[in-house]
Amino acid sequence: MIAVLKSGTTQEQKDHLLNWLKHMNLEVHVSNGKEFTILGLVGDTSKVDIDLLQSLEIVESVKRVSEPFKQANRKFHPNDTVVTCGNVKIGGGHFAMIAGPCSVESKDQIIQVAEAVKAYGGDVLRGGAFKPRTSPYAFQGLKDEGIQLLREAKKATGLPIITEIMNVRSLDLFEDVDIIQVGARNMQNFDLLQELGKTQKPILLKRGLANTLQELLMSAEYIMSEGNENIILCERGIRTYETYTRNTLDLSAIPVLHELSHLPVVVDPSHATGRSSLVHSMAVAAAAAGADGIMVEVHNDPAHALCDGAQSITPEQFNELNKMVTKVREVIR
Amino acid sequence: MIAVLKSGTTQEQKDHLLNWLKHMNLEVHVSNGKEFTILGLVGDTSKVDIDLLQSLEIVESVKRVSEPFKQANRKFHPNDTVVTCGNVKIGGGHFAMIAGPCSVESKDQIIQVAEAVKAYGGDVLRGGAFKPRTSPYAFQGLKDEGIQLLREAKKATGLPIITEIMNVRSLDLFEDVDIIQVGARNMQNFDLLQELGKTQKPILLKRGLANTLQELLMSAEYIMSEGNENIILCERGIRTYETYTRNTLDLSAIPVLHELSHLPVVVDPSHATGRSSLVHSMAVAAAAAGADGIMVEVHNDPAHALCDGAQSITPEQFNELNKMVTKVREVIR
Amino acid sequence: MIAVLKSGTTQEQKDHLLNWLKHMNLEVHVSNGKEFTILGLVGDTSKVDIDLLQSLEIVESVKRVSEPFKQANRKFHPNDTVVTCGNVKIGGGHFAMIAGPCSVESKDQIIQVAEAVKAYGGDVLRGGAFKPRTSPYAFQGLKDEGIQLLREAKKATGLPIITEIMNVRSLDLFEDVDIIQVGARNMQNFDLLQELGKTQKPILLKRGLANTLQELLMSAEYIMSEGNENIILCERGIRTYETYTRNTLDLSAIPVLHELSHLPVVVDPSHATGRSSLVHSMAVAAAAAGADGIMVEVHNDPAHALCDGAQSITPEQFNELNKMVTKVREVIR
Amino acid sequence: MIAVLKSGTTQEQKDHLLNWLKHMNLEVHVSNGKEFTILGLVGDTSKVDIDLLQSLEIVESVKRVSEPFKQANRKFHPNDTVVTCGNVKIGGGHFAMIAGPCSVESKDQIIQVAEAVKAYGGDVLRGGAFKPRTSPYAFQGLKDEGIQLLREAKKATGLPIITEIMNVRSLDLFEDVDIIQVGARNMQNFDLLQELGKTQKPILLKRGLANTLQELLMSAEYIMSEGNENIILCERGIRTYETYTRNTLDLSAIPVLHELSHLPVVVDPSHATGRSSLVHSMAVAAAAAGADGIMVEVHNDPAHALCDGAQSITPEQFNELNKMVTKVREVIR
Repeated sequence: MIAVLKSGTTQEQKDHLLNWLKHMNLEVHVSNGKEFTILGLVGDTSKVDIDLLQSLEIVESVKRVSEPFKQANRKFHPNDTVVTCGNVKIGGGHFAMIAGPCSVESKDQIIQVAEAVKAYGGDVLRGGAFKPRTSPYAFQGLKDEGIQLLREAKKATGLPIITEIMNVRSLDLFEDVDIIQVGARNMQNFDLLQELGKTQKPILLKRGLANTLQELLMSAEYIMSEGNENIILCERGIRTYETYTRNTLDLSAIPVLHELSHLPVVVDPSHATGRSSLVHSMAVAAAAAGADGIMVEVHNDPAHALCDGAQSITPEQFNELNKMVTKVREVIR
Repeated sequence: MIAVLKSGTTQEQKDHLLNWLKHMNLEVHVSNGKEFTILGLVGDTSKVDIDLLQSLEIVESVKRVSEPFKQANRKFHPNDTVVTCGNVKIGGGHFAMIAGPCSVESKDQIIQVAEAVKAYGGDVLRGGAFKPRTSPYAFQGLKDEGIQLLREAKKATGLPIITEIMNVRSLDLFEDVDIIQVGARNMQNFDLLQELGKTQKPILLKRGLANTLQELLMSAEYIMSEGNENIILCERGIRTYETYTRNTLDLSAIPVLHELSHLPVVVDPSHATGRSSLVHSMAVAAAAAGADGIMVEVHNDPAHALCDGAQSITPEQFNELNKMVTKVREVIR
Repeated sequence: MIAVLKSGTTQEQKDHLLNWLKHMNLEVHVSNGKEFTILGLVGDTSKVDIDLLQSLEIVESVKRVSEPFKQANRKFHPNDTVVTCGNVKIGGGHFAMIAGPCSVESKDQIIQVAEAVKAYGGDVLRGGAFKPRTSPYAFQGLKDEGIQLLREAKKATGLPIITEIMNVRSLDLFEDVDIIQVGARNMQNFDLLQELGKTQKPILLKRGLANTLQELLMSAEYIMSEGNENIILCERGIRTYETYTRNTLDLSAIPVLHELSHLPVVVDPSHATGRSSLVHSMAVAAAAAGADGIMVEVHNDPAHALCDGAQSITPEQFNELNKMVTKVREVIR
Repeated sequence: MIAVLKSGTTQEQKDHLLNWLKHMNLEVHVSNGKEFTILGLVGDTSKVDIDLLQSLEIVESVKRVSEPFKQANRKFHPNDTVVTCGNVKIGGGHFAMIAGPCSVESKDQIIQVAEAVKAYGGDVLRGGAFKPRTSPYAFQGLKDEGIQLLREAKKATGLPIITEIMNVRSLDLFEDVDIIQVGARNMQNFDLLQELGKTQKPILLKRGLANTLQELLMSAEYIMSEGNENIILCERGIRTYETYTRNTLDLSAIPVLHELSHLPVVVDPSHATGRSSLVHSMAVAAAAAGADGIMVEVHNDPAHALCDGAQSITPEQFNELNKMVTKVREVIR
């Protein structure tokens, strides 16, 4: 970490600051320049509160040189992490196609979609049981019953299942869930992250609506620091001023996260765009950019089928998408 | 709610959609135009999933006409809500100055700051016990002990106390806390909001980093829908591309929230700007814009005092700020 | 266009508004609801100032139903536009690889890069002569001389050339330039757009730093409304809160622009990411998402070669990139 | 400027980089650390292309220590700049109230509004003659005739006038204009800035839609570097994800710009919010935050008067606003 001190700083002020930094077991290299004094801080700077340091009156600016995440950092763990759930592997060259309905609605619905997902080459079944909704008056999911229906679909098809957790207290319900999803709104629910870190379940961690990639990795670090290294990162679009798409899908997140971390990266084009007509091209682009998996919404119910719509695609469209993704992956290897 | 259907829509598709909408107990007015068909949906549209509707293939676009929040809506509750905690009132012409350190660090520290806050006219003492930190390696606050120290400061000064809750499981610890703060990262932690709705505690609800004002009001609605109407809204800066300030303080939120809702609005210039040199002018501007309260960080410890810095201001600066805010409030009345 | 009037609106106010709208030659359909009155405006609504209408006291909200762009609109021009410059075609299934240095620096440099671009399959040579720089003290390009050097590179290799125009007054210098680029900062320099509309030159129009896709199409419309239909749209990243990449590349712009418009869409991954290590994967992803061309920076000078860096890639990396893009394009056809 | 080199950098690579930097007449201080090498660059770093340096393969990161603007920098020019036009002064304790219609529409209109502005204490008359419009089909202003009408209003009332310039070629028309406005879309039209720098006219420079405060100051520097120091900076809202207001007014820009620069700062709450109901409170807040002036839209025409609307306020509302701003300014002195 580098701190630049302002030109008017007195020796006494410098000494106070140096003492404070040394109390944090940091070694400090001082270069006195004409205009500025530069401090190089060496040691475990991950505990330094950069915001506090930056805000001190005598400090012109602070710059972190080493990333604040360690266990998620590729520098200290050069090999790709491979997350395993049942027969499915994600990362390190293994690719997973995750598909299913937005919400679990009924036994018939989830079994039918699961069978279609399986038939068309999907690897993991997704489906929402607990639904985070902006409005308290909106349908919040079938909850426990939804998870029960997912278990039946798993039994019927053999597909591992992934579903979202919304709070610590329902963790027991997720025993038979193969991958636990942490949604965008909970990416910085640190209490939840720490509890999930105490399990050994694979966790799919979605990037928050307005979170940087470094913050995403820090949230992965929260889980890993408790002992769980089975983490899949997920890019699902960020909030920008553009309103044509629901969010702006940031596909550069794929190569950036691969540079910075050894964790696998999955992309969710359905939530990101909010428009079914964009799902195919964004899924194929994600595969071309090196994603380790794709998560898409597939529906099979009359209300959707009628209008061939929503951010969900039909089983037939999923079939086409999966074929194309497979071809593109063969090319880019 | 208005839905515009695309020009190529068949009568059969329209009928299917109309049936679906009518099943949700909505009355539908249809105007057939040359280019478009317009549906006016009347009834309780708060339960309609606007994202789903918008994403249907035959739907060109959807527009909500009435706001999806009801209990927080000024239209249905024209008078200002006044939140009371002890002798302090917030809203409806009552203004509260909330001040205290970023984190509770020791008994001496919190008592000293509390006495300064009281001496210089503060109404409520703030102090962090549970600290949401991006990094798992950073100081996470004194937790239970921090709350205990706040209680001692309350006893010593008579000031009501406010501190942040980070998860449902620690709710019992907040019994003697006068106002429970929900931080920006938890604004859409719906499970937490619902539990807080079951208490009658005043809740200070901070706007999320990238949340719209409507989403803030929907989160207030989550609390209110469970029965707790003692809510204070808090603008604390939003995330934008500008990096000079930590966040961009959106002071237009004050008159907008006052137009849309009857709930009081407080502004936190310390976290928003991340720079102590900007706190005074932004606090005064917030008061000028009609805020019902200001929440600022005030410190009294040697590490800060040395450098006269951080986003926190000194007790003397707080004194000046409070005097100026009072003068400005007299003028704008 | 649909306008929703507030509930308290008087008949007199409605009549005034209706008269005003009818003076703009609009037909107005009125549906009186219990809570709201809805006006459907039919006719040439592209001249209506939506901001003005929206801001009227009696107007709850306004919604455009038809897009405000006409000549750029796929609805009125269903076939893909193919832009031709020399032997190169862009759009309608024709793909162009545009490559070259950030700035033209010397005759040797531009000829060498041009030859490498040609040898490795590039279609068009890019190179900056007039450089828009944030600082007045930074190198502003070789200007006239830069364009002269590009002409020599064109003569030496036969590659058509593209370079950026920064103001109307230098238009004469662009006579031998095959494609004129309008940079992000000039996307809404309407005076410049109108002048370019009076030529028949192909124009590559870059999306502004914080402009919506609709605004990009409106700027294309400015050019087209003066008679020039040879327009290539270019996605080059938008400004967001994320700082790891210079900008956030919005690849969903490709399918969105293809849905809304018949104009070809090119992607510039070099400027968008600002990091050479991300250029390859983002170029391949853009091709996979259906782009009609890619524009990348390729360098050949010692300062860059030394460090193998910048947002520019080497000729050898360009060769690999071009091969991969070609393979992916074959797959997605 | 500080550059941090990656750990694997060879001595040969370092030497190449050092040579390159020394060729730019920079003195380089090298500190070799265990993990990183830190280079301190001393000299005229304003010419260093920070983007290029940052993107070099061996460079971990770069940090500017001194601001890249010089003439606009308060460090080198501690006293407030006072811009004078006629009898009106802006900056250094002098405050200006600038008001007038969005567009000049007719002689009657502009004269009537000008008289109202004068009667209610306005200092400068604003009015759009050249209007930057997103759509080529929208009304583009009365242009030359609009400027002529402004001159008549000036003659009738004695108020100095301000109006927007959209391109270099119309500069001659602005001879009798007292303050030339550069709009948000032209903030980085560098050619225009340089031409304006060759005049001695006061220039009101609006912040671009998505420009940082540092970029705003760099654009001021463009004008100043050509010799014109009569610059007024203007905050007018930035583009964010929030859609309730047209833009998000960033009032912290006022104290930040005052810290960084000696130039006066004016705020435009009308364009920023796009809603007349928010103009009053945001104008008062801007004054409370220390603005050197306010620019508001005031209308007097029947279309607006009817609906009491738009982002413009009525003369009577302007009167109230001006009185309140005056009172608040007295308090904060």
